[in-house]
Amino acid sequence: MSSDRLLRVSAAMADADLDALFVSNPKNVLYLTDFHTTMPGEVQPFGDPEGLVVIANGEAHLLCDGRYIAGARQLEDVTAHLITSPSNPGVFGEAIKGIIGDGKRTVGYEANALLYSDAASLMENLSGYVWKPAQSIFARLRVIKSQDEVDLIREAQAITGRCFDHIAGWIRPGMSERDVAVEIETYMRQNSEGNSFAPIVAFGQTGCHPHYTPSPTRKLEKGQMVLLDFGAIHHGYCGDMTRMLVMGKANDRQKEVYDLVLQAQLKCLDGVKPGATCHSLDALCRDYFESKGCADRFQHGTGHGVGLAIHEDPRIKKGFKETVEPGMVFSVEPGLYYEDWGGVRIEDLVAVTDDGYENITTTSKTLLEVSP
Amino acid sequence: MSSDRLLRVSAAMADADLDALFVSNPKNVLYLTDFHTTMPGEVQPFGDPEGLVVIANGEAHLLCDGRYIAGARQLEDVTAHLITSPSNPGVFGEAIKGIIGDGKRTVGYEANALLYSDAASLMENLSGYVWKPAQSIFARLRVIKSQDEVDLIREAQAITGRCFDHIAGWIRPGMSERDVAVEIETYMRQNSEGNSFAPIVAFGQTGCHPHYTPSPTRKLEKGQMVLLDFGAIHHGYCGDMTRMLVMGKANDRQKEVYDLVLQAQLKCLDGVKPGATCHSLDALCRDYFESKGCADRFQHGTGHGVGLAIHEDPRIKKGFKETVEPGMVFSVEPGLYYEDWGGVRIEDLVAVTDDGYENITTTSKTLLEVSP
Repeated sequence: MSSDRLLRVSAAMADADLDALFVSNPKNVLYLTDFHTTMPGEVQPFGDPEGLVVIANGEAHLLCDGRYIAGARQLEDVTAHLITSPSNPGVFGEAIKGIIGDGKRTVGYEANALLYSDAASLMENLSGYVWKPAQSIFARLRVIKSQDEVDLIREAQAITGRCFDHIAGWIRPGMSERDVAVEIETYMRQNSEGNSFAPIVAFGQTGCHPHYTPSPTRKLEKGQMVLLDFGAIHHGYCGDMTRMLVMGKANDRQKEVYDLVLQAQLKCLDGVKPGATCHSLDALCRDYFESKGCADRFQHGTGHGVGLAIHEDPRIKKGFKETVEPGMVFSVEPGLYYEDWGGVRIEDLVAVTDDGYENITTTSKTLLEVSP
Repeated sequence: MSSDRLLRVSAAMADADLDALFVSNPKNVLYLTDFHTTMPGEVQPFGDPEGLVVIANGEAHLLCDGRYIAGARQLEDVTAHLITSPSNPGVFGEAIKGIIGDGKRTVGYEANALLYSDAASLMENLSGYVWKPAQSIFARLRVIKSQDEVDLIREAQAITGRCFDHIAGWIRPGMSERDVAVEIETYMRQNSEGNSFAPIVAFGQTGCHPHYTPSPTRKLEKGQMVLLDFGAIHHGYCGDMTRMLVMGKANDRQKEVYDLVLQAQLKCLDGVKPGATCHSLDALCRDYFESKGCADRFQHGTGHGVGLAIHEDPRIKKGFKETVEPGMVFSVEPGLYYEDWGGVRIEDLVAVTDDGYENITTTSKTLLEVSP
């Protein structure tokens, strides 16, 4: 475990007047203890959890059942506690009480990483404690990446880039969207820890859906544009990149929309530096599209933080007033979508530095034309 | 959409005195509306949801943002509502109020499929309504499968079985656990909608962890036993099977432990019929192991329901008093685990019939010895 991280969490707990902190978000458990969970999502239901942490008196306690206890006991600087299975809010209540004791205690909890039913039962069972939402403690620590973390994300993104090169040399007319998605998934599993999310592969018109499930029957035709959005996982950290290619020669409309999106992305990248706000960065794309009369075709935010989670703070969206700081890593991914034609999105990951940013995505943004 | 399902949900709502039902579990949204979500897990955070449903006056309303609205509008018998993005509890509160109106209403919600923070804000925003936990409505409908659903699970399990045959003919000494997991994943993506969970592949001693992440460096040796636990997805429905094989000739201990687990599984299968309780089925395995002096090595429940979710009701576990009914589909998967040696698990899926069960897993349970 990173004892440095435990010290920083403990300091934040003291600032928030917490006697203890109950950590249920699996990514936060991983960040603190190096305990890898396998279940998807950011919630561990009390009926089927992998590992939850209680921090008190500067110590971390990991609660897990017989399926995971052997692995938990091998971790350094963590006290592993075996809980009974099937588990439920009562089991966790007893375990928490056993660690932090009876009496008046203020306990932090992650309101966005607990099921409503679990949290309500737990607080009812342990109504002698004062319960305080404290999800911001880990969110604030995780939003600023250390150099080691930036290096891991850079490597995840480098693997992602090599996967794109592989696909560009392999893709052929007649393949289905799902064929391409499976090839990406397999490449990622062979060359990294897996896929940071289900790859998006869209041919031509289906590119109009920003989140799209690749079709097993939709076949690639000459002249179609291909949208590829995917990422590797390296030591738990996510890559995330979107690139376009054309199967053949790009036509004028493809070039025109591509160039609009690329110019918007470059405008936004130019603005990335400490002190910019998330809202202002989003506006750089949105205002550019407005000046070109196509702002209504840009239907999502400009970017999102990336780290142990594929979507985390900061959110580069309208109305988000947070200030960008050195160590933040996020995507810049404007897009334009036309239901009768298709869509274009270009996505890089950037790491904010003391005086600007490093683009940790090195894959070319010249529109690639693949010979059919 | 299945209008039959909407009718049955509406009837259950009437029984529970609900004016409206807010459906957030993505599997329940799929069951009712045929709207496919891509995010993992059973919770849709209000800050990044795909599609949530409000049922009122016998009609289903699907709420989603610009990323999904085009797909939602193509569904039959569902009214699609565009919500603003970024969304939050306030956005959903307004949308719900717009559908069911002001005034005193009793609204059901899924307490186990909402984040604590989302649900608490929603109820605070709409404090004029009476909010009632109602997750049991869909759980009760989904636990009894129609013949169509059993057929889909049978096909998912048939694909799973063909994948095992493929692996048995392909696996060789020197491959890593992850090589085998990637081969399973790729097979499933090419031959079905994907993997119902991350495949478990364990060689020899690592089989002692019931939930295990395949290692990229652990290589298969002659004489090792291989544990394979995996499943396909077919039209949204999950397969789930565990089989063992030996790379070479099985030794006496491997045969002995395998036979203990197989006998326990057969004892349990013999008991599957309407009227048995979940607890009593679990006890059939546990008591058999007790009679052989190894009950302490069986560290998990005997089985779990399978359907649109890989883990759903019923739970075949100690203390679960529910009665087994025709149409239920669940796994029977006893195992024995030895930290210094490895583990054996054998898992089939069964569908309960009027007078017993159908084993919808047809893959042989004779211990397979693969020539190295």
